[in-house]
Amino acid sequence: MKDARPLRDITWNELQEMDAGRKGPLFNRHDRPYHCLIAQQFSREMLDRLGDLATAVRRIAKSKAGSRFLAGLLDHKRAMIYFSQPSSRTFLSFYAACQILGIKPSEVRDAATSSEMKGESPEDTVRTFSSYFDLLIMRTPKQGFAEKMAWLLSNTDRPVPIINAGSGKDQHPTQALLDIYTLQRSFERAGGIDGKTVVFVGDLARGRTVRSLSCLLTNYRDVRQCFVTDPRLQVPDDVLEQLKAKGVEYEVSDDFAAAVPRADAIYMTRIQDEWDKTPGESGHLDISRYSLTAKHLAQLKMTAVLMHPLPRRGEIEVAIDRDPRAIYWRQVRNGMWIRVALIATVFNVDAQILEYYKLNHA
Amino acid sequence: MKDARPLRDITWNELQEMDAGRKGPLFNRHDRPYHCLIAQQFSREMLDRLGDLATAVRRIAKSKAGSRFLAGLLDHKRAMIYFSQPSSRTFLSFYAACQILGIKPSEVRDAATSSEMKGESPEDTVRTFSSYFDLLIMRTPKQGFAEKMAWLLSNTDRPVPIINAGSGKDQHPTQALLDIYTLQRSFERAGGIDGKTVVFVGDLARGRTVRSLSCLLTNYRDVRQCFVTDPRLQVPDDVLEQLKAKGVEYEVSDDFAAAVPRADAIYMTRIQDEWDKTPGESGHLDISRYSLTAKHLAQLKMTAVLMHPLPRRGEIEVAIDRDPRAIYWRQVRNGMWIRVALIATVFNVDAQILEYYKLNHA
Amino acid sequence: MKDARPLRDITWNELQEMDAGRKGPLFNRHDRPYHCLIAQQFSREMLDRLGDLATAVRRIAKSKAGSRFLAGLLDHKRAMIYFSQPSSRTFLSFYAACQILGIKPSEVRDAATSSEMKGESPEDTVRTFSSYFDLLIMRTPKQGFAEKMAWLLSNTDRPVPIINAGSGKDQHPTQALLDIYTLQRSFERAGGIDGKTVVFVGDLARGRTVRSLSCLLTNYRDVRQCFVTDPRLQVPDDVLEQLKAKGVEYEVSDDFAAAVPRADAIYMTRIQDEWDKTPGESGHLDISRYSLTAKHLAQLKMTAVLMHPLPRRGEIEVAIDRDPRAIYWRQVRNGMWIRVALIATVFNVDAQILEYYKLNHA
Repeated sequence: MKDARPLRDITWNELQEMDAGRKGPLFNRHDRPYHCLIAQQFSREMLDRLGDLATAVRRIAKSKAGSRFLAGLLDHKRAMIYFSQPSSRTFLSFYAACQILGIKPSEVRDAATSSEMKGESPEDTVRTFSSYFDLLIMRTPKQGFAEKMAWLLSNTDRPVPIINAGSGKDQHPTQALLDIYTLQRSFERAGGIDGKTVVFVGDLARGRTVRSLSCLLTNYRDVRQCFVTDPRLQVPDDVLEQLKAKGVEYEVSDDFAAAVPRADAIYMTRIQDEWDKTPGESGHLDISRYSLTAKHLAQLKMTAVLMHPLPRRGEIEVAIDRDPRAIYWRQVRNGMWIRVALIATVFNVDAQILEYYKLNHA
Repeated sequence: MKDARPLRDITWNELQEMDAGRKGPLFNRHDRPYHCLIAQQFSREMLDRLGDLATAVRRIAKSKAGSRFLAGLLDHKRAMIYFSQPSSRTFLSFYAACQILGIKPSEVRDAATSSEMKGESPEDTVRTFSSYFDLLIMRTPKQGFAEKMAWLLSNTDRPVPIINAGSGKDQHPTQALLDIYTLQRSFERAGGIDGKTVVFVGDLARGRTVRSLSCLLTNYRDVRQCFVTDPRLQVPDDVLEQLKAKGVEYEVSDDFAAAVPRADAIYMTRIQDEWDKTPGESGHLDISRYSLTAKHLAQLKMTAVLMHPLPRRGEIEVAIDRDPRAIYWRQVRNGMWIRVALIATVFNVDAQILEYYKLNHA
Repeated sequence: MKDARPLRDITWNELQEMDAGRKGPLFNRHDRPYHCLIAQQFSREMLDRLGDLATAVRRIAKSKAGSRFLAGLLDHKRAMIYFSQPSSRTFLSFYAACQILGIKPSEVRDAATSSEMKGESPEDTVRTFSSYFDLLIMRTPKQGFAEKMAWLLSNTDRPVPIINAGSGKDQHPTQALLDIYTLQRSFERAGGIDGKTVVFVGDLARGRTVRSLSCLLTNYRDVRQCFVTDPRLQVPDDVLEQLKAKGVEYEVSDDFAAAVPRADAIYMTRIQDEWDKTPGESGHLDISRYSLTAKHLAQLKMTAVLMHPLPRRGEIEVAIDRDPRAIYWRQVRNGMWIRVALIATVFNVDAQILEYYKLNHA
């Protein structure tokens, strides 16, 4: 991997080619993820299948019998959820996803606590931990580390799939999957995602969710992407260039009021001031202009949806939570369901789930 | 909830009325807890039923077949045990109680560890976490926060029951339940709690366990309550006024030796110096006069019981642990059993347990 | 226990005698561990049985049906893994071992976090925690504390077995068991451990793994032990005296190159500078002379094995990991399997496992 380009710079077709004919970093078959490292590795076909699977799981889980069916699928597996960077919400979502499939989760918060670890390489630490488990779910502040471990473990006697649960400012592929799934669900009876207008608002410069979702949306036909925020927080040029290269229609603007009525989905984000170069630099921005308040609701299409990756600060008034178009709380739960779908796919029990669903729910 | 009186100022009858006709904060049916927030919400009838259920569970759990029956009751449920204030013993007791019923527990120790949480409201944090779970067990230093979340979640699409595992100096209802259950068990063949004399000793001014147990004991007939300690640590006036209002016989004294021979139960407590207004102020008190030593045992009724909510310091000599009347170690386990009973009742599997018990043990 | 000698100073025969006729600290029957406290408590017969059991478990766990059989053995039990000294690898190994047998684990990282614990004795803390569990797995920095708790709990109404997961510089018996099991596996088809030459390299003065493994190897016939390192890190005299007393052949040397070709097993260890009396004192040593590099591989027997208790620093080049004789990664997993075997034996389900193995695998 030392001489290879980072995965994020590689297209999905190239990735597939790289993987062909050897135990690669991403797929165990050409159409199925093994490691889940970057948003770009998912084709539209995969996204559709994951979404269908998540919906099946969600409905199956409503009954006790269904829950037991799911919990029997992978009850012989153990997962390590290794978060060297804290994130309770992502952690709990994966923890619950494992439990739903019967996988026994173990938590490792920080390897660095142990004095005897001093001097051990991070690769050795993770490989040691991986010895006890069948799945690694990793969150690290180090860009590229999950990839590196995926290559390393794929080349040992005992490969273990790795799911990237967020690596620095870089990648958080399951967040992107849950956003896509939320859009799939929202437009299920409205022709799907194709042809919709998605408005991104807030800190578009530093939010990795915006970057990943924008990329995955290019898998859909005729989706218009609008980036609406203060110019100092606008989306980076490389995101726009990617859209241009793929012929995707997009718009860059600072006029939130004008964007609201045209949106099929509004994707709000908070200011990520933890990435400020000078402490407090984001504090000078007037973000109230890019906040959603009760007065916008009247302008919003009845069929539109309001999303937010959470946590929120003031970008969305609490009073809006009761509006049926506000789906960010459901979005949280979608994250759990899509993670179940992803893990089920990694372990090849997706067909069993769809079969059960057909027999009992369709 | 902003304009409402805090629940602790409201009588049980009033609470029931408040709840009638809507999805209230406490009950899903008039006779059954939904949220478990305060000790006062439990009537004698409920306490008796919980005690019987705890005993059934305790006996069923002795066999492997019984354990498996219990673990199959709620194996489709997941609980979040959210302790923003550390308490390993209460945490483990709830953790074990969940495991006994097959509920898969997840732990959240402190939401504040994550930098990305900064600026999120505590309500949003807990609501996010609740998305992945079917039960929230919460311990917070903030008085009233569990109540607030109970109201909030009861008014969403996806209500989740909340069990208060201790909120500040305020309420710790399951501790009160376990104390009552310990008395129920101890006097099972001696006519029950009615007519007994309970002697409270130690830090009666600041111990919330004393306050709650004193309150719950008013549900029983002819129970005499004695508060024996240094005058500076005596029970607050509002507790005594409550007893007076209900016509309960009580006694306030500083003479421990005189109280011992008359006690059916002695409830020892430690000095809670973590609540000292000036650091070290409790250090000046001579608590050795309110400590139980081997010499008291001869004066104690053969049928009496010695309780302590633990942790203890010097109030009870370790040598006393072997006296059969010392039941504080059993009291610890009773906490686990009564929590199982409570959770089983919240999820309406109490009848199934009693049925199994009747068929297999009676 | 106050007047008794520490267990580590007592021979196994003496221990058995002490235990005869009463609920002792180590055995519930003469041939079976109850508490697992020190490496010396294991006879060769026990080591052989544990090794056979570990192998059976390892093979049974390969299939889903087998995993389910194992997970049904002790699914009515709960374990507390109480690590007041951090060690993620040992923790995870025990956690996974419990999960394999269906035991529900709970984690206690540090009892000291809770302010209300202040003033409670460590014995009360552990006894309280033990109330909720059927097995305690303890790691403490305090030498002898696990032993003390074993005696204390053995003399209560509710004894609970204790497994010592490492106590200070003192004892780490399951590490010794996993090292023996690794040697058993490695020489399975080469006549077993009897007659082999084991070369210990590195920090032999302070590594408790070396001390314990050296002791357990005396159970085998004609094993030659070589201690190869810088004289300032050589093995303590009491270890050598023990070997002398038992008539075991040993060698003390500083010539690594000479030792390599004669070794059947090389047991590498890292410098344990966390025990340095003056910070940095180990830094002055040139340990590169006692590091394994690619150039040694040519000198090493084809049938030899390279072991390391991990974590490693520079003692073994990463490039060596791919050599089939490098078995330290397998050694990590052996730790999990031997812990499963130990716990299964404590709870008397070993015969059931061997029966299943005979029916399905032999």
